[in-house]
Amino acid sequence: MKTILVVGIGAGNPEHITIQAINALNRADVLFIPDKGANKADLADLRREIIARYVTNPASRTLGYAVPQRDAANPDYGAGVDDWHAALAQRFAGLLADVPEDGSCAFLVWGDPGLYDSTIRIIERLRQAHPVAVEIVPGITSVQALTAAHGIALNRIGEPIHITTGRRLTAVTDDTIVMLDGQTAFTQADPDLEIFWGAYLGTPDEIIIAGRLGDVAEQIVATRQAARRQHGWIMDTYLLRKREAREPLHP
Amino acid sequence: MKTILVVGIGAGNPEHITIQAINALNRADVLFIPDKGANKADLADLRREIIARYVTNPASRTLGYAVPQRDAANPDYGAGVDDWHAALAQRFAGLLADVPEDGSCAFLVWGDPGLYDSTIRIIERLRQAHPVAVEIVPGITSVQALTAAHGIALNRIGEPIHITTGRRLTAVTDDTIVMLDGQTAFTQADPDLEIFWGAYLGTPDEIIIAGRLGDVAEQIVATRQAARRQHGWIMDTYLLRKREAREPLHP
Repeated sequence: MKTILVVGIGAGNPEHITIQAINALNRADVLFIPDKGANKADLADLRREIIARYVTNPASRTLGYAVPQRDAANPDYGAGVDDWHAALAQRFAGLLADVPEDGSCAFLVWGDPGLYDSTIRIIERLRQAHPVAVEIVPGITSVQALTAAHGIALNRIGEPIHITTGRRLTAVTDDTIVMLDGQTAFTQADPDLEIFWGAYLGTPDEIIIAGRLGDVAEQIVATRQAARRQHGWIMDTYLLRKREAREPLHP
Repeated sequence: MKTILVVGIGAGNPEHITIQAINALNRADVLFIPDKGANKADLADLRREIIARYVTNPASRTLGYAVPQRDAANPDYGAGVDDWHAALAQRFAGLLADVPEDGSCAFLVWGDPGLYDSTIRIIERLRQAHPVAVEIVPGITSVQALTAAHGIALNRIGEPIHITTGRRLTAVTDDTIVMLDGQTAFTQADPDLEIFWGAYLGTPDEIIIAGRLGDVAEQIVATRQAARRQHGWIMDTYLLRKREAREPLHP
């Protein structure tokens, strides 16, 4: 049976990679690199840089593949994602043909394969028709890079954390992390909240802004637009939380 | 000024460590190892193993320190934690005296320093009296080790995630991660939920159990008790979620 290694490579800093991930990449006969188009070349570049730095197995080879686009115009979000996963599962099946019998291949996943990434689900779908072994290697997420960059803890003492997407952001009660927010949903939130925002986290282009939401929201929107124009893409994440008198120790 | 490096070392597997963390540990003049008593010797052992494997800086030295106990009998949880942090900040101030002027020291933190760990808050308190520079290095958490071990994604497609403690577990609506649950709060939850449980994640002693909560809760309680007796300590984490027909792809 062939083995698929789903390897988290961290949030953008090549040094986010774990020893476990390096060892996994070095066990793979084939390393798959998605090509998401010129605009996102930086993203493919990080994968190539990681392979160049850390893969020392002379027998491994790298194979690029074109990524089908999700139909963002489909009004049924679930159905759009489902079609996209089906197309990707078919693409993955084609890639598997290039893996030797009883050999291993690896997908290099930004962040952690378990957090807002589709690879595990696409492989579950693939397995329905193609039996494969799967191993998952965790990686540092942008959530962790965000709190490290701001020098803060994610949770208050003993308090819960909520992680959601821009699409699903509602009234903030618990400390809330927002990912995948292309629509700057924070501009609709209570201006008295505190925001810790970051983009290109872990990379040399990292930008972070923090403060009372009402005071910094416009600055974040403008910074975001300018950076997106400059790079052709943006990935940002933020924490929203109530400013509370009972935590006097925060700097 | 002295620099404190707060370094996440992962959830128990020495290979969870990142290159960034290895480089940080090698920049430190002094590496601090907490001594939490014989029962938790395994925990100190992991730190020592990581230092033995990855620290190659011949000038660095390791310094053990006794950890004051939190007064778990204090009926006011917040006040108990506050007193404990104050005692630890005082202990940390004493440790700083052993760091050379303009030198660096490192705390090796299980998991990620931002997730249910006190080190950042204790250092914030310490800084009120002792100006120090602080750098935070993220690490793989037991949440990530849990989902990797079970071969699942943490979130459903586009859906939120809730992270909380056993103490604060209430009715499960969103997919919910529970940490720091010494009281097996899951036994009080809806038996029709699905649970993905894991203990000693990432270590050779790792145990995972998954299934319908009503079917596996007793097995988890018994496994937990036996393992705790055997090791003298236990750290476990679990995901609770509704079993939903609309996710047919889960194995």
